[in-house]
Amino acid sequence: MSNTTCACSATPDKIVYSFGGGTADGNGTMKNLLGGKGANLAEMARIGLPVPPGFTITTEVCTYYYAHGRTYPCTLDNDIKAGIAKMEEIVGNKFGDTKAMPLLVSVRSGARESMPGMMDTILNLGLNDETVVAMADATQNPRFAWDCYRRFIQMYGDVVLGVQKLPGEDHEPFETVIENLKHERYGKDILDSDMTAEDSQELVKRFKALVAERTGHEFPVCPWEQLQGAIGAVFGSWNNDRANVYRQKYGIPSEWGTAVNVQAMVFGNTGDESGSGVAFTRNPASGENVFYGEFLMNAQGEDVVAGVRTPDPVAELANVMPAAHATLSEIRQTLEQHFHDMQDFEFTIQDRKVWMLQTRNGKRTGVAAFRIACEMVEEGLIDWQTAVKRIPADQVDQLLTPIFSGNAIKEAKQIAHGLPAGPGAASGRVYLNAERCVEAADRGEKVLLVRLETSPEDLRGMIAAEGILTARGGVSSHAALVARQMGKVCVCGADALNIDYAARTITVNGETVKEGDYLSIDGTTGLVYLGKVDTAPSEIIQVLIDKTLAPEQSRAYQNFAKLMDWCSQATRMSVRTNADSPSQAEAAIAFGATGIGLCRTEHMFFEGDRIDFVRQMILATKKVDRVAAINKLLPFQKSDFKGIFKALKGLPATVRLLDPPLHEFLPQTKEQQRDLAEKFELRVEDIMRRVSELHEFNPMLGHRGCRLGIAYPEITEMQARAIIEAAIEVTEEEGFEVVPEIMVPLVAFKKELDIQKAVIDKVAAQVFEEKGKTIKYLVGTMIEIPRAAVTADQIAETAEFFSFGTNDLTQTGLGMSRDDSGAFLPKYQDLEIVKTNVFASIDQEGVGKLMEIAVELGRKTRPDIKLGICGEHGGDPASVKFCNKLGLTYVSCSPYRVPTARLAAAQAALEQA
Amino acid sequence: MSNTTCACSATPDKIVYSFGGGTADGNGTMKNLLGGKGANLAEMARIGLPVPPGFTITTEVCTYYYAHGRTYPCTLDNDIKAGIAKMEEIVGNKFGDTKAMPLLVSVRSGARESMPGMMDTILNLGLNDETVVAMADATQNPRFAWDCYRRFIQMYGDVVLGVQKLPGEDHEPFETVIENLKHERYGKDILDSDMTAEDSQELVKRFKALVAERTGHEFPVCPWEQLQGAIGAVFGSWNNDRANVYRQKYGIPSEWGTAVNVQAMVFGNTGDESGSGVAFTRNPASGENVFYGEFLMNAQGEDVVAGVRTPDPVAELANVMPAAHATLSEIRQTLEQHFHDMQDFEFTIQDRKVWMLQTRNGKRTGVAAFRIACEMVEEGLIDWQTAVKRIPADQVDQLLTPIFSGNAIKEAKQIAHGLPAGPGAASGRVYLNAERCVEAADRGEKVLLVRLETSPEDLRGMIAAEGILTARGGVSSHAALVARQMGKVCVCGADALNIDYAARTITVNGETVKEGDYLSIDGTTGLVYLGKVDTAPSEIIQVLIDKTLAPEQSRAYQNFAKLMDWCSQATRMSVRTNADSPSQAEAAIAFGATGIGLCRTEHMFFEGDRIDFVRQMILATKKVDRVAAINKLLPFQKSDFKGIFKALKGLPATVRLLDPPLHEFLPQTKEQQRDLAEKFELRVEDIMRRVSELHEFNPMLGHRGCRLGIAYPEITEMQARAIIEAAIEVTEEEGFEVVPEIMVPLVAFKKELDIQKAVIDKVAAQVFEEKGKTIKYLVGTMIEIPRAAVTADQIAETAEFFSFGTNDLTQTGLGMSRDDSGAFLPKYQDLEIVKTNVFASIDQEGVGKLMEIAVELGRKTRPDIKLGICGEHGGDPASVKFCNKLGLTYVSCSPYRVPTARLAAAQAALEQA
Repeated sequence: MSNTTCACSATPDKIVYSFGGGTADGNGTMKNLLGGKGANLAEMARIGLPVPPGFTITTEVCTYYYAHGRTYPCTLDNDIKAGIAKMEEIVGNKFGDTKAMPLLVSVRSGARESMPGMMDTILNLGLNDETVVAMADATQNPRFAWDCYRRFIQMYGDVVLGVQKLPGEDHEPFETVIENLKHERYGKDILDSDMTAEDSQELVKRFKALVAERTGHEFPVCPWEQLQGAIGAVFGSWNNDRANVYRQKYGIPSEWGTAVNVQAMVFGNTGDESGSGVAFTRNPASGENVFYGEFLMNAQGEDVVAGVRTPDPVAELANVMPAAHATLSEIRQTLEQHFHDMQDFEFTIQDRKVWMLQTRNGKRTGVAAFRIACEMVEEGLIDWQTAVKRIPADQVDQLLTPIFSGNAIKEAKQIAHGLPAGPGAASGRVYLNAERCVEAADRGEKVLLVRLETSPEDLRGMIAAEGILTARGGVSSHAALVARQMGKVCVCGADALNIDYAARTITVNGETVKEGDYLSIDGTTGLVYLGKVDTAPSEIIQVLIDKTLAPEQSRAYQNFAKLMDWCSQATRMSVRTNADSPSQAEAAIAFGATGIGLCRTEHMFFEGDRIDFVRQMILATKKVDRVAAINKLLPFQKSDFKGIFKALKGLPATVRLLDPPLHEFLPQTKEQQRDLAEKFELRVEDIMRRVSELHEFNPMLGHRGCRLGIAYPEITEMQARAIIEAAIEVTEEEGFEVVPEIMVPLVAFKKELDIQKAVIDKVAAQVFEEKGKTIKYLVGTMIEIPRAAVTADQIAETAEFFSFGTNDLTQTGLGMSRDDSGAFLPKYQDLEIVKTNVFASIDQEGVGKLMEIAVELGRKTRPDIKLGICGEHGGDPASVKFCNKLGLTYVSCSPYRVPTARLAAAQAALEQA
Repeated sequence: MSNTTCACSATPDKIVYSFGGGTADGNGTMKNLLGGKGANLAEMARIGLPVPPGFTITTEVCTYYYAHGRTYPCTLDNDIKAGIAKMEEIVGNKFGDTKAMPLLVSVRSGARESMPGMMDTILNLGLNDETVVAMADATQNPRFAWDCYRRFIQMYGDVVLGVQKLPGEDHEPFETVIENLKHERYGKDILDSDMTAEDSQELVKRFKALVAERTGHEFPVCPWEQLQGAIGAVFGSWNNDRANVYRQKYGIPSEWGTAVNVQAMVFGNTGDESGSGVAFTRNPASGENVFYGEFLMNAQGEDVVAGVRTPDPVAELANVMPAAHATLSEIRQTLEQHFHDMQDFEFTIQDRKVWMLQTRNGKRTGVAAFRIACEMVEEGLIDWQTAVKRIPADQVDQLLTPIFSGNAIKEAKQIAHGLPAGPGAASGRVYLNAERCVEAADRGEKVLLVRLETSPEDLRGMIAAEGILTARGGVSSHAALVARQMGKVCVCGADALNIDYAARTITVNGETVKEGDYLSIDGTTGLVYLGKVDTAPSEIIQVLIDKTLAPEQSRAYQNFAKLMDWCSQATRMSVRTNADSPSQAEAAIAFGATGIGLCRTEHMFFEGDRIDFVRQMILATKKVDRVAAINKLLPFQKSDFKGIFKALKGLPATVRLLDPPLHEFLPQTKEQQRDLAEKFELRVEDIMRRVSELHEFNPMLGHRGCRLGIAYPEITEMQARAIIEAAIEVTEEEGFEVVPEIMVPLVAFKKELDIQKAVIDKVAAQVFEEKGKTIKYLVGTMIEIPRAAVTADQIAETAEFFSFGTNDLTQTGLGMSRDDSGAFLPKYQDLEIVKTNVFASIDQEGVGKLMEIAVELGRKTRPDIKLGICGEHGGDPASVKFCNKLGLTYVSCSPYRVPTARLAAAQAALEQA
């Protein structure tokens, strides 16, 4: 037996970190190891804040647990015992003590990032039939002790032992037991707080019977066994469905694991001199610098969050218990001074003493994020670089989202109000459960998810909805928290709503709203309106785009502008836009774009009568007819380009030549084909024949891009002429220089580009001759075919710039059609084969590797080659950062994503520096 | 003017190489510079063979000519004059001499490789109204002199001055002039040789008038101007249409350029003691070691080739002019001893003296190539390595394909032509669908399957048919692909065929062929014949596959076997086969395959009733039904694999899991869907719905490959079980070890392979447990997605082998659908954007680069990783050589391509050594 190997060799040195009593093993920087909660408990203990003592089991134990078939390092037991011993020493009570007040503990999960969906909390652990008596004696409060005990069994039974609603049951089984008891004893529903010690004692008995019946095992009596079970449940919850869904949405790797926090209990429910609360050091919705939050007297923390009773604003505490309010106000200052960020913290007041249970950087709306960042710079709390780095780039969207339009809202009927929990305005059809909400959204409906309160099970529905409305719960409820993080519009605690899940109706102030009817909610004011209400642009849009609001009238705009200025100081890459019209170009410039990275000329082909000429071109059987049809398009294309060049006022524009396969321009239904035949005086058979000739098995890999320009050089000639003539004319008319960048799509072979460039150069020379004027222009190519990436050194001999077409590069590089991937990509995300949606965020290891190869080869041939990206990914923050790492010259994205890209580009530059 | 730049700086040092008089500036190794003809003229001169003196203008001048706007290096004129001067010195006549016999010259093109399509020859250059008189005087033969002159004007007028048949004219204009004169003077057609000096003199007059009329210029009188014109015409012909078509077909780069040979004229037409001939040192059709060729007395070389008079066999010369025959026989020996290869040479006998005008390695049939190579080794002329290197690998096919018997084909009526897609000859009754094809074959008929195009549903028909003929699709269409794998005769894309499925007729060029009528197709030439034409299998097939001929009865087989043995000695890579059935495996082994590199399991899905179970599986709405249907396939798959493993007798087999998208297994027409609904007692709507659900926009990039196995692990489970059970049972029953290599298709992410490998390992463990026996097996993957190539280091952590699926890697890597590329790929070949058909021969710069990256990364992780290729390219000689360069372990190709691949692999190894 001397040679048995033990997995212990894989055990990290230190796996349990104690905190409390003014000191701690860990600190706030150790989030990866201790989780966010654990690290901040340690940090608070270190800086002298009143933290109940406890210890954190590290995330490495979680990793170990999954790597070793759900077993623990063999040293863990001893370390836990040592941790409990330290707590006993500080608190002065013993875990499992049956003679004196026993030490009770809470067990909480705590990942690097807060993760609703994982097991949250077990409270009052350590109680059994003997310790409860000791507690009753010690506190002189049997009602309280037995209430704690029955709550513990209920929570532990539910979360650890899995005693939950079975299919077919209407209610949670423990709640049913409570309800039955209330009706037996009182003939009606009474408040939990009105139950007596005897009631709780009876509930304990019935709860234990329920657990035994459902699980086949007695409820664990031994506090150590209870503790082991709770720790196992935390680690197990890391891989439950809800947690996986959440991780997937937020791109959290499963390898991170969670920590477990075991902490001495403090009680907010010992009586009227106790309470619990959740607070923010600033308003997380607006960003205003006020002490913000809510509390409930004689309640435990989960009562505040659960939304059963609606809590009071934290300002009210100044009246109820001025000393505690003063302590908390002081703590609020300490927290911001120490953490240099807005904090979201939980506290408990036990018999007038304030205890801190948690602090973390507070989630905030985009509006708040901008305001807080700007004001903290003004206050000297942070520097501007930190301000820029701190704002999640994908939150910028929230500043641009619509609000209800002034007139519409005046006429709208307000039917309820709740708490403003996620800013913006949303109008949609009401659905009362997540599943139907998702179905309706899949059908293309705009939907609102309306619930009494939300829970992690509703996550998918929340993702699908335009907005979320709840009847219960405060600004720290689940609904509010998640909505803020997602940037969803949210109103919560609108308690006038009477929601009948069975009938699928909401009655409110005499109105009845059925599922499928419209409601409208304003997450900035908390108001709820009947029916559909038109929305209007956000303040930033009003200032920048609509110009209906002066900059000085909008604080939101001013914060936005300040942040964007800082971004410009920090950034290395520039941000261009994908725009096909002057108005799009103007909007993008207003948002700070420094040019057009992708102007898709084919979008212009669909406007007005032009499509007729396009169709004539495609249907022509002789070159002379084709050329004639194409040339009819010339004046339109030229005037389009002139409009765009004028809007750009000299900023650069990359114009892509015709890209999509020709069949996209022909009508596909028989009826449309008949109409067209009549219009063009053709035989419908000829049109059908042409449609069938152009049919492709894999159009994505077919006759498109430069392959069209090579088959029909007359198209390239017309487009080149339109671009060059427009550039010369605008240069002459407007007096600024226009340097068009002509981009050849779908190049896979250098020679394709050579041939197209020769056509462009020939036409340019002709136009120069005709106009008696010469301008500068560039010819470059998309890199959107893997072959182009790996032969970029050759292509760069001809190409003066590259622009990564990551949409197609993803499709070809992964062999995955965007249009067809719906059949398997969701499963791929579930299985973590792909970490993100590869069509939204660049697959850095695969597609990114091809880009890296192309950048390296391209630069080898042409060291100063201009490099950009114009795929959808250009507006995705993670992709923008990746592009910065590759050293691209610019990213290009849709106009409304420009601020996001600017922020991401600035952050990338600051992070790299 | 002191600073003008001159293109002369780009002129190579030496651009004109003289030869003759027993010496030469160049030699036989200088083919790139002097062209094949020029180098060999020089070589012959060096070794003392009787070569008329002359000089060669190098290919570099051609390159210069095109690089500098069709101008020449300024030194060229002087060099030409010096060259002529040397010739004058050797011959003793002066160019343009009007007093004595003038020096006349021929001007010929001569590229590195012989290229029909380029300008061939101008003879008798230097004649004009004065020199012709000098010649007549000197030779005392005015008839001869004037005949030479009129031939010169005709040839020069046609080739250099472009006086050719106009649209609407029935005959060549010079021929019309001759005909008219004959009728005027003799009232009938007489032989050219019967024309008098006066006739020729008159023709000269009329020819000059014709030239002046057609070109607007007088015929050039000055010999130097004539020479300049002829040289220009040679260089110009390098880029004419015919030359371009030829280059494209044979992959000759346009950068090579042609040389020009100017040589002193010798005359085979001075009278009965003169003559011309073309000969081979061995028989180029059979390879027999005999002096072979033909000659004409009193004729110039082009008369032999033109076929106006039927020449005599060269053996006859022994009777006509024994001394010349003896000289030529001696020259024949010298040539083979010197060049160590079969030579194809031209000679002229002028007044009993033999002159050599050209020699080159002779083109030969595949059969001859094998025989000559083997016999030259026996004779000690070459070593076996040279024998292996010398045979064009793509000629091997010719030894394996059935052939039309010689007499039958002469009488057959050709009615259409298509692409030669599967070599050999086949004759059979026509059927227009697979089912009727199978029925007829079952009745014992020889059948041809004729379709617009084929799909996997036609597979049984293709198996049953002697040959396959399609109206659409190229050499890489489904029909062609499958035909090559099966070794079936195939002609595809014969677009003159009008196929009427309803009427069951084919109309083509006025003929109507009904189902059941005979057609005959030649897959080596692409020709289609009416009616039945007798065929015979090749001898090699009779020996190896049919076993109807003993090895010792076939010299062709013996040569083949000897060569293949040498290949085995030389090769580094092994050659496997793509085979889906025991008979395919057996054929491949007979051809020397050392295992299966690709067994496509889905091909088995179409056989017999299995397709029903496959369809039940696809149509199942519940997993339990799907699993039930899948499990019905298990016994079939297992017995398939057992058959294959038995046939392999312990050689390795790579089995690919299900690859194609499921919709390929469902019927696509409404009628078939109705039938299926009836059969399965389903509603036709449900079938249509499923078909529509499975419809994909880009099926190539859709839900297929391992994406199926991940969505439906039960398919992978069934296939893994069938493979492992079969392997165990065959190991037990046959006593040899079976080590299956299980291949997961379409992997793009390492995790896909991880997931599929986990399923396979789980099933294998179950089977081992059930059977109480363990075997070795490998799990690996296709590399057929660019992402897989660039992340091969990650994938190799799991994969025990890679097999390059170059079909799909070409489609994804180039973003080019094989099925749709017909719309633009031909133009791409015209424009030399692609040098070869990328679906037939690996695009080495692009797809090859991806392969190179994958090989490098894969080996970094797993240095001993087994690397193969199983795309169609595995049987293409150039691709095989590329694979050898990459260091692959093996190539895999269709059974009938195995000998080709073995030869190419051996050549690659020898060339690399």
